Amino acid sequence: MTGGKQRIGLWMIGACGGVGSTVALGIAALGKRSVSTTGLVTELPPFTSMNLVGADNIIVGGHEIRKQTLLSAVGEMHAESNVFRLETIKACAPALGRMQKNILPGIVTGSTPKIHRMSDPGCVRRASSPASAIRAIGKDLSAFRARHRLDHVVVVNVASSEPPLAHRAVHDDYAALSRALSRSGATVLPSSALYALGAFAADCSYVNFTPSVGSRVKAIEEFAAGRDVLYAGRDGKTGETLLKSVLAPMFAMRNLKLKSWIGHNVLGNRDGMVLDDPRVKASKLRSKDGLLSQIVGYTPLAHTSIEYVPSLSDWKVAWDFIHFEGFLETKMSLQFVWTGSDSILAAPLVIDLARLTAYEYAAGRRGRMVHLGCFFKDPEGMGGHDFSEQWRHLSEHYAADAPSRKRRAKRT
Amino acid sequence: MTGGKQRIGLWMIGACGGVGSTVALGIAALGKRSVSTTGLVTELPPFTSMNLVGADNIIVGGHEIRKQTLLSAVGEMHAESNVFRLETIKACAPALGRMQKNILPGIVTGSTPKIHRMSDPGCVRRASSPASAIRAIGKDLSAFRARHRLDHVVVVNVASSEPPLAHRAVHDDYAALSRALSRSGATVLPSSALYALGAFAADCSYVNFTPSVGSRVKAIEEFAAGRDVLYAGRDGKTGETLLKSVLAPMFAMRNLKLKSWIGHNVLGNRDGMVLDDPRVKASKLRSKDGLLSQIVGYTPLAHTSIEYVPSLSDWKVAWDFIHFEGFLETKMSLQFVWTGSDSILAAPLVIDLARLTAYEYAAGRRGRMVHLGCFFKDPEGMGGHDFSEQWRHLSEHYAADAPSRKRRAKRT
Amino acid sequence: MTGGKQRIGLWMIGACGGVGSTVALGIAALGKRSVSTTGLVTELPPFTSMNLVGADNIIVGGHEIRKQTLLSAVGEMHAESNVFRLETIKACAPALGRMQKNILPGIVTGSTPKIHRMSDPGCVRRASSPASAIRAIGKDLSAFRARHRLDHVVVVNVASSEPPLAHRAVHDDYAALSRALSRSGATVLPSSALYALGAFAADCSYVNFTPSVGSRVKAIEEFAAGRDVLYAGRDGKTGETLLKSVLAPMFAMRNLKLKSWIGHNVLGNRDGMVLDDPRVKASKLRSKDGLLSQIVGYTPLAHTSIEYVPSLSDWKVAWDFIHFEGFLETKMSLQFVWTGSDSILAAPLVIDLARLTAYEYAAGRRGRMVHLGCFFKDPEGMGGHDFSEQWRHLSEHYAADAPSRKRRAKRT
Amino acid sequence: MTGGKQRIGLWMIGACGGVGSTVALGIAALGKRSVSTTGLVTELPPFTSMNLVGADNIIVGGHEIRKQTLLSAVGEMHAESNVFRLETIKACAPALGRMQKNILPGIVTGSTPKIHRMSDPGCVRRASSPASAIRAIGKDLSAFRARHRLDHVVVVNVASSEPPLAHRAVHDDYAALSRALSRSGATVLPSSALYALGAFAADCSYVNFTPSVGSRVKAIEEFAAGRDVLYAGRDGKTGETLLKSVLAPMFAMRNLKLKSWIGHNVLGNRDGMVLDDPRVKASKLRSKDGLLSQIVGYTPLAHTSIEYVPSLSDWKVAWDFIHFEGFLETKMSLQFVWTGSDSILAAPLVIDLARLTAYEYAAGRRGRMVHLGCFFKDPEGMGGHDFSEQWRHLSEHYAADAPSRKRRAKRT
Repeated sequence: MTGGKQRIGLWMIGACGGVGSTVALGIAALGKRSVSTTGLVTELPPFTSMNLVGADNIIVGGHEIRKQTLLSAVGEMHAESNVFRLETIKACAPALGRMQKNILPGIVTGSTPKIHRMSDPGCVRRASSPASAIRAIGKDLSAFRARHRLDHVVVVNVASSEPPLAHRAVHDDYAALSRALSRSGATVLPSSALYALGAFAADCSYVNFTPSVGSRVKAIEEFAAGRDVLYAGRDGKTGETLLKSVLAPMFAMRNLKLKSWIGHNVLGNRDGMVLDDPRVKASKLRSKDGLLSQIVGYTPLAHTSIEYVPSLSDWKVAWDFIHFEGFLETKMSLQFVWTGSDSILAAPLVIDLARLTAYEYAAGRRGRMVHLGCFFKDPEGMGGHDFSEQWRHLSEHYAADAPSRKRRAKRT
Repeated sequence: MTGGKQRIGLWMIGACGGVGSTVALGIAALGKRSVSTTGLVTELPPFTSMNLVGADNIIVGGHEIRKQTLLSAVGEMHAESNVFRLETIKACAPALGRMQKNILPGIVTGSTPKIHRMSDPGCVRRASSPASAIRAIGKDLSAFRARHRLDHVVVVNVASSEPPLAHRAVHDDYAALSRALSRSGATVLPSSALYALGAFAADCSYVNFTPSVGSRVKAIEEFAAGRDVLYAGRDGKTGETLLKSVLAPMFAMRNLKLKSWIGHNVLGNRDGMVLDDPRVKASKLRSKDGLLSQIVGYTPLAHTSIEYVPSLSDWKVAWDFIHFEGFLETKMSLQFVWTGSDSILAAPLVIDLARLTAYEYAAGRRGRMVHLGCFFKDPEGMGGHDFSEQWRHLSEHYAADAPSRKRRAKRT
Repeated sequence: MTGGKQRIGLWMIGACGGVGSTVALGIAALGKRSVSTTGLVTELPPFTSMNLVGADNIIVGGHEIRKQTLLSAVGEMHAESNVFRLETIKACAPALGRMQKNILPGIVTGSTPKIHRMSDPGCVRRASSPASAIRAIGKDLSAFRARHRLDHVVVVNVASSEPPLAHRAVHDDYAALSRALSRSGATVLPSSALYALGAFAADCSYVNFTPSVGSRVKAIEEFAAGRDVLYAGRDGKTGETLLKSVLAPMFAMRNLKLKSWIGHNVLGNRDGMVLDDPRVKASKLRSKDGLLSQIVGYTPLAHTSIEYVPSLSDWKVAWDFIHFEGFLETKMSLQFVWTGSDSILAAPLVIDLARLTAYEYAAGRRGRMVHLGCFFKDPEGMGGHDFSEQWRHLSEHYAADAPSRKRRAKRT
Repeated sequence: MTGGKQRIGLWMIGACGGVGSTVALGIAALGKRSVSTTGLVTELPPFTSMNLVGADNIIVGGHEIRKQTLLSAVGEMHAESNVFRLETIKACAPALGRMQKNILPGIVTGSTPKIHRMSDPGCVRRASSPASAIRAIGKDLSAFRARHRLDHVVVVNVASSEPPLAHRAVHDDYAALSRALSRSGATVLPSSALYALGAFAADCSYVNFTPSVGSRVKAIEEFAAGRDVLYAGRDGKTGETLLKSVLAPMFAMRNLKLKSWIGHNVLGNRDGMVLDDPRVKASKLRSKDGLLSQIVGYTPLAHTSIEYVPSLSDWKVAWDFIHFEGFLETKMSLQFVWTGSDSILAAPLVIDLARLTAYEYAAGRRGRMVHLGCFFKDPEGMGGHDFSEQWRHLSEHYAADAPSRKRRAKRT
């Protein structure tokens, strides 16, 4: 994974979790050219001709609230989930050690009690108010950018899922929100949103790979509009939902009527553990269930469940049972079983999103990135969920950009 | 399923087989408006605005080499495969009786011994040479068109699969082929190709829904070029291959590397019985296996097997095991199980193809229909196998046609 | 299904439900010898040599709280679930009509609001107290026995599942229970238990095919001990649990360690609808989950879920994911998908249980039948859940009985 | 895995293959008490009270025809199949090195060309005739026993599968066979049988874990009868067939009629590669298919296929589709997917068989071991294939032995 002269920061919220540590290991290994680029969308044409930032020029940092380090995290993943080669880990240990220096204590302001309990003493930055937490985040990011002389920093949220945010009037107006956040003990926003505000305050872009609210708040988008930033989200489309977004259009295009779509997910990683809280699960399931009706134009019975099965470690197994009606009212079925490692599926997409965001930044664009819909379960804007359509949208976005890209290339 | 003023013939080779009799029952039931249009692609937008021929104006006829009638065939399907409501069969029995009058003895010239054995005495038209068989077919078709005052006749091959045709020089030149076909006892072409020649000779269009060679012979296409006909094929994309054509692009677009794609099909209908002949199976499997490499750009290990399991009757169960590699060389898998009634899946597509071919004919177009690729496992032309792309190709074909359609509508 | 001279009554609680009406149709069809005996355990050796009561000598009756009749029920099952041949229904309609005369309004005393709402006006017998409901049930049963000159009546509960019964002191002492039941408005027992008491009061045997409490109450068993009756239960072992009870022993006997056993059931019949109430589901899941630990001797993570998917009608699809550890701590998995019609699986077992109970009665045995464990998810006594062991227990029970059977046969 | 004072040799034909090297690693690791005894049948009660030989007292040796060593084999398995912990391999490397000294060049006399091609120069012992090959094997075994002062040596065949042996008259008479084997270039027996003869000649017991013929030849059994040996076989029951042997009895005991049982196995190890030869596959499939009819008493349509899918390495995935008929002729289905590592499943059973054979030897029994049926797809004798029955047979064998075991224990 090589590329242009840009030099960027990839700052991960929850850096030493399964996804975060896999991203770090991946960037280290790609930097050494010791692994293939399988799984990276940006290593496919037409993206390979875009001169995107290379692995060597992506500096990794992040916030983390547990004692876990990048190296201990990948070691644990290897031992429990049977992923990564031990040689890769060994060869990348020095690089992970260097990245570790950029990993700072995170905030738990606005987090659930479960997250509080997961955090380790000494790994959490206490703040007198949400506003002060935001300021601290912003300072960390600015210092990181300055220290490493980065052209831009992309903050990616890969932390544990939060419960859905109940809408309040204060979420619609930045001025009001800003006042509320200054009060000590305010619980007006969860931490994913505070991180988004901190990123924007420091003129960093923000990508939300989780179902948490992140920047998806009117007042926060209002604030972003005035800053030198881009943003996109939310909830990475990695497994069962990815399949839904290619299979549902097939049923639609064949005029086969979906009666019921039942999905059952079992998984064993920290995400599964956090999702075992019914409130948090609600947030995840909401991201997952929206898409069927949008694609087929009616609402089949849909049911998705998620269970925490620790013996699976980082692996997720999803069984989907799809009951549909064909010609002359005949009922038929499709079932699938997806067996994938969550972090392994997510990590390359995080790297893709960082590269594509950095590209947009360099191209002078700012604000919401609606062309990245194919990466998300609950994408920005109205682009729809059909994966083929989303992919076409993405390629056309960059095809349209080709002439100006050539001009930019000449200038540099 | 209502439509314009066109009045067409839908002539099926193998009319009283599973697909043929389901098509007949479907057209009868649609004519009575007693069933939904589920399964018919042409009842989706944008096709609903094309004023395609309605069920009332599709006259069904065909060739058949067994004693089976349309009514006995659907009764058997109901009893053995648990498809169709008995009330539908009863209500449509008179209509099926009327269609039966248009069903004539077929040819077995060029067929395998297995097919010969399947045929019933008195249901087969003997011919002194392939050329004479072609003439007989052409006469049947012309008489059918004249008797029912049809604007056009579309011949659809839904007969049992044939073994692959070994290429010979005579297949490349119509004059030479024509001479060879005149010799008594010549075995230069299988019956599916003789039917195609008979159809073209009578200025009828020909659609090949099976993996048999049909019109896919250079010399036959040469002959078609001089006639007032259209043609398309081959091998309807109804189940496992349909899924391949939406799932393989997903893997490609996520840069996930396919290692192995193993498909196992069990089915219990006459198609399964005929496919139990290894030579015939080869033809079917060839249609199925081509697509993966075309879509992903490399050749994963692919293996497809088909077994005849009589207890399944018209049902087909396909298990596919897809082994793929993701980021950092991690192996993962997707499995699916497709449980569908073959005839039920195929029949509406046959009706779609007849309607769309009739539309093309009325619009004045002739020759090979490359825009119908989404219906076939082994489509005409170079359009590729990605189902979304094929669908887009199809809709764009008709969108481009909209202005001239309006003009035509005004004129009539 | 032919047999001896005994003449018995099979009285079903919930007679016109899926299971009840399938039992009725089955007995009618078996009486006509128009169907095979597939599915009937008592038509296997060694049971075929026991001269069990034949279909002709089983008189069907029951209680029902809905307008549904046996005939309308089987018609609905045929139309919605694609089970039964229409000819079978037609041929058996007169017999079903005769049985229908033995079907009387049931009670809803002690039922959940959901069951109350399901009942139809005019189909429910109101009672001033539970004791009066019990008396009414007893009278119905005595009258049925007298009218048809039956040797014995076996009451089988095939009604909708109830929530688990919270234990109270009054459940442990029949005298106290009896007093409590005399009070109007008492809710000390659910209707399944009132039916059991009514059956015992009329000297009828009682078999509980559902997870409801039925006779599994200390005070009720105390009452039964003084009566001329037998009883057994509970919750018929028909599908997923049956599989568990053969697969779990396999893992145990190979010393393969179960880590997690996740089961996901989707079903569309009335049972599924009733189970959609979380309290009722608890009862069902309790029956299902007990067995694993008993069989393997430790407690793997076990999770079973049930969802109501109306499009499946009487069909149930169960996906089980079994994660286990083998030699050198290697994790492996077994998955299965069970696709069965619930009523079709249950009905022959209900007939088996009636025949075997009548046999015990004729052999002079009374009380709890522990040898019938292989029929139940939550069997009487301590016999364990291993299906092979249960089956052996059953055959040995009858093998031991062979000499006295011969003596009895001589006497008659 | 600890035990009595016996000291035995476990000599494996194909010692450095997947199964052989896993056995070696397992014995080394068990000797260090660094792994659990999961997977070992002999570590379950009642076998734990039998004072079977412990891991420390099992000396490993064998024949091998490839350059592969035990250490290189387990390293390869770890890298390709993601089995074993690297720490286990490292800790056991010295022990594997010691075992390696007992591994000698094997014979290819009587092997297929494919096996010949797999062998490495210098790893094969050339012999002037089969008789001389047998003598060489016998010498190796005697020397091994003497060098390590072993009470008994158990030879276990874990080499690649051979094609089925066509029966010839000479196979029925040891004298005739003996003469034939003396001729140079004779091809009267495959190598698995020569190894059996070599083992018996040296008074070593022989266990055949493969579908090859081994000692299952009348003349060889005649020879064994006069020697101080035991023997058992053949084809270890580890995965799909194990499941068949617990599921088929369930269908039988519920009187559910099997219509079709279709099994599809994909696997990626050397066994899979060798099985890719249709003649060899025949041998394997024959072992697999016999059991259904024996268990259910009639012959359903059965089809088993095996495909070589290198990307799976040592993993095997089996999909079985079981179509069955229930009450009132209703068709239902069960499907399962088994995902297991072949070598990991087989290895502990090899250790079990060695321990149990050594126990029999010490108990003074000789000849064919019919009580070990639960370990094999194609067991010795007429014991049937029902796994529960086989298991009961095995436990009862040892229960019956308990009193004499106590006496023996006192004597020593």
